Amino acid sequence: MSDRIVVIGAVAAGPKAACRVKRLLPDAEVTLLDQDDLISYGGCGIPYFVSGDVADEKELRSTSFHMVRDERFFEEAKGVKVKTLTRAVSIDRKEKIVNVENVKSGQKAQIPYDKLVIATGSRPNVIPVPGHDLGGIFTISSLHKAIAIKDLLAQGKVEKAVVIGGGAIGIEMAEALADLWGIDTKIVEFMPQVLPRIVDKTIASMVEQHLRENNVEVFTSEAAQRFEANEDGWVKKVVTNKRELECDLVIMAAGVRPRGELARDCGLEVSPFGAIVVNQRMQTSDPDIYAAGDCVETFNLVTGKKAYAPLGSVANRQGRVVADNLAGIPSRFDGVVGSFIMKVFDICVGATGISTDVARAEGFDAVSAMAVQSDRAHFFPTQALMFNNLVVNRTDRRVLGLQGVAKMGDGLLARLNAAAGMIAHRSVIEDFSNLELAYAPPFSTAVDVLNAAANVADNLVSGRLKVISTEEFVDWMDGKTDHPDWMALDLRHPKEAEPWVKAFPEKWLAIVYDKVRANLDRLPKDKTFIIICNAGTRSYEIQLYLRSVGIDKTFVLPGGLNVIRRLGVSWWQQ
Amino acid sequence: MSDRIVVIGAVAAGPKAACRVKRLLPDAEVTLLDQDDLISYGGCGIPYFVSGDVADEKELRSTSFHMVRDERFFEEAKGVKVKTLTRAVSIDRKEKIVNVENVKSGQKAQIPYDKLVIATGSRPNVIPVPGHDLGGIFTISSLHKAIAIKDLLAQGKVEKAVVIGGGAIGIEMAEALADLWGIDTKIVEFMPQVLPRIVDKTIASMVEQHLRENNVEVFTSEAAQRFEANEDGWVKKVVTNKRELECDLVIMAAGVRPRGELARDCGLEVSPFGAIVVNQRMQTSDPDIYAAGDCVETFNLVTGKKAYAPLGSVANRQGRVVADNLAGIPSRFDGVVGSFIMKVFDICVGATGISTDVARAEGFDAVSAMAVQSDRAHFFPTQALMFNNLVVNRTDRRVLGLQGVAKMGDGLLARLNAAAGMIAHRSVIEDFSNLELAYAPPFSTAVDVLNAAANVADNLVSGRLKVISTEEFVDWMDGKTDHPDWMALDLRHPKEAEPWVKAFPEKWLAIVYDKVRANLDRLPKDKTFIIICNAGTRSYEIQLYLRSVGIDKTFVLPGGLNVIRRLGVSWWQQ
Repeated sequence: MSDRIVVIGAVAAGPKAACRVKRLLPDAEVTLLDQDDLISYGGCGIPYFVSGDVADEKELRSTSFHMVRDERFFEEAKGVKVKTLTRAVSIDRKEKIVNVENVKSGQKAQIPYDKLVIATGSRPNVIPVPGHDLGGIFTISSLHKAIAIKDLLAQGKVEKAVVIGGGAIGIEMAEALADLWGIDTKIVEFMPQVLPRIVDKTIASMVEQHLRENNVEVFTSEAAQRFEANEDGWVKKVVTNKRELECDLVIMAAGVRPRGELARDCGLEVSPFGAIVVNQRMQTSDPDIYAAGDCVETFNLVTGKKAYAPLGSVANRQGRVVADNLAGIPSRFDGVVGSFIMKVFDICVGATGISTDVARAEGFDAVSAMAVQSDRAHFFPTQALMFNNLVVNRTDRRVLGLQGVAKMGDGLLARLNAAAGMIAHRSVIEDFSNLELAYAPPFSTAVDVLNAAANVADNLVSGRLKVISTEEFVDWMDGKTDHPDWMALDLRHPKEAEPWVKAFPEKWLAIVYDKVRANLDRLPKDKTFIIICNAGTRSYEIQLYLRSVGIDKTFVLPGGLNVIRRLGVSWWQQ
Repeated sequence: MSDRIVVIGAVAAGPKAACRVKRLLPDAEVTLLDQDDLISYGGCGIPYFVSGDVADEKELRSTSFHMVRDERFFEEAKGVKVKTLTRAVSIDRKEKIVNVENVKSGQKAQIPYDKLVIATGSRPNVIPVPGHDLGGIFTISSLHKAIAIKDLLAQGKVEKAVVIGGGAIGIEMAEALADLWGIDTKIVEFMPQVLPRIVDKTIASMVEQHLRENNVEVFTSEAAQRFEANEDGWVKKVVTNKRELECDLVIMAAGVRPRGELARDCGLEVSPFGAIVVNQRMQTSDPDIYAAGDCVETFNLVTGKKAYAPLGSVANRQGRVVADNLAGIPSRFDGVVGSFIMKVFDICVGATGISTDVARAEGFDAVSAMAVQSDRAHFFPTQALMFNNLVVNRTDRRVLGLQGVAKMGDGLLARLNAAAGMIAHRSVIEDFSNLELAYAPPFSTAVDVLNAAANVADNLVSGRLKVISTEEFVDWMDGKTDHPDWMALDLRHPKEAEPWVKAFPEKWLAIVYDKVRANLDRLPKDKTFIIICNAGTRSYEIQLYLRSVGIDKTFVLPGGLNVIRRLGVSWWQQ
């Protein structure tokens, strides 16, 4: 008798597992269930469908060779039977039966299995405040919702939108609304920064400023407290703890939760968060039942702790591992480092591993090393600045994470991808200093920005480089903190430094980089110097030199004014 | 007494070592010597200076903050003393003295050292055939040569150029001459392909075809046998074993050799190839003498054998390691994987690790796995095909190398950089299958092309996927081999397949991918099927299916017709 393999959920992990196991076990009878009628789509493409970059929703559920992945396709091309509009109601593990019902007709049926795969995905969080279920408030939970949003936009029914949540999906949706459709769009984020727990404050601030420059207002540390309706029951206002925002569309992008109920209700182990617990073979607590994708718990390879990683790419890799194990190939999925990248108008931002904040919260003695450098040879015409922030553990020099911001393109991806595998392999600073990134002037620099970040980390951890944080510097400049003994020592070209000396005569001293050795006597004896240049490298060199002549009260501004310039601080233009 | 540190050679490794050791040991007296007067330049930028992308040679020897790195700069900004036009003639290790002479005045001097760094770089190979020293024949050995070439071009004195050598520098120079200056340019390569020993034949053939499409003719398996002069002693013709090529400029880009004589002559250990032997601390056989850059031998981290890796990025990393060790920090440089990338008109090509050919020559049971896939989501407007070829060892599943071709941009870099660190860490296929590359539709696909290449490798090594090589297929189509039992089984859309069925009625059978299961009876029983689609994925699926119904004589064409289309074969357009 051939194996009967039933897969519940047909978006990412499910189809991947179903099709591969059918290839590996051609005699198996593989059945794929989904409660929706639109299946096997690229959910991460929804913002690009809404924006109009992708014209037709069918493109999101087509193969690269332009076949739509519908029931017929799976049946004829893959030999996999698909039942859409079919909700799995319960699992009878003893009888090995999935009880299903048709979501339209209500008709019930029983589907027997030898092996079962649960790939039920996630559901979006809904903020439980008054009015959360009004018309015009959408989560991004399915292709149907995306189609409904785009219809509203195409009908010209949206002038003002509020996005609840400054995570990746919230920002992507904000761009989709503001960029092509020209909608007045605002983001409300509960935490003090966008992309919380993903990137550190400085990187987040650069993203926030870029959003503002593109007419997307960002309100952080602010929570929606209620939604108000017009006479048609349609949302007209978001009321936060600080203000009221008029709108005719709300995108609720406040994260997702695993759909683990089906597993829990049949007695499988689920985490307190509701995610299905699996081993490294993607096997649940019932050896005949596997699970994969947004509904499962996984491991974080950096913290060593359990983690939840609802990402399309992870779902696909897990789906493949499920198929292997169903077919007797002992594949493993060991966990995630949390690689992430996104487009934000003209820039991109991304991360892999963990942020400094998360690292400290997890008990690491974490420091972050900022390198700001040309993405390619500085003499190459298309060069642009790239910001790489490497997070390392001081005690064992392990690299914990990398975050970055760059001009839109694949340059940042090239550094994140390089770091992802290294971080998973528990690499240390030295591994990154010597990491042999490919070099030619049109692509990179002889000492790549990622090597440079590792070198900064080495200098930091060894105690040679002493820095103040960007936030400390900004607070001082803002007058929020008082440090009468501090003085900026500006090493830039006199033309660059001059306006700053004029604007801040008491705070600012300019001595150009290559003249410091000859002008030591110009340095007041009683000051602590905040050494400043454009990127931080010249400042580090001068810090070492000053220390060698006995001037030890110095701090480098990491990343220099290239970072400050991107924060949107009021005093940037003196 | 402070340390006297002398560094011989001031292009890449030398200045890096000198400046960092001065930072780490501010009291040391650091002296940098060079026989040239132009120092500390980005030699890899020379083709872009010649092409005109970089207007002024000073940009190649400037910092990112636009200071020219000349003697004054090193002295004032870095505290490093520089002596240019100063040739190191010999090293007296007993007395710890470098004997030098001024290359202009001939004046001799002695420079004492406590620690010495040799960074004498490389010299270009000159093919020892008659006429190799004629006017108009240039190697790319210094900035002076580059300036001389550009002067000739600017004066309109060059109409036809021949580049000897189809390696990276040869191809970059060919592009520089042909693209902006519109010069009729030809490449002569001694080996049967361009980029020999760096990429495999199929990838090289794509590069050759792209060069041809951009009016650069490529003659492989062809050697210059003599150069002929006009009445002024200027080159007018390159005579090869196959033809005569008129020209008024020859670029000799036939590789480089280490400048190890100075080290050898003072009794330091040098390799048979002439490279200085160093340990992982970059120390020569004399513990007071270090060496770095193009003049040293290193290790190949894949083969475990000694290697020569004259790359600007490697030189910089080694220079840093030298400085650390001089300052008592026990840094190591363990070896190279050979990461490489280059622009070729509108495409880029690159590699890391070793090629299949090299791997087999080194005794590995190597197979290559080709993945051809969109570089970003196939529904994203800017997507383009990327070709990734993963080289793996069949016996232990270790990944030995990655090569690729893509549209010009940083997408290929993102995959090579990811692979470089993994290969250095001795990763296996599974590590690459699960490598957590950052994903969002504007940047990549949920199953990235690099993950896909690993999956292909897994299918290959496990014996599930059986392929013929691109070369075997091309030879069959060319009629060079006779396989009366072979038949192409074309799975593409009928519109794509139809012209091929018409053009090759005896060889070609078309059954669209999702109709194979329903049309098994159309397959002749006595044939071996070469299964064909555009990328190879559909072909693999159908191969497995056919095997499951007892049809076992099948081969997949790896990468499908997307590869063939880029080879410039005569029968592409039927």
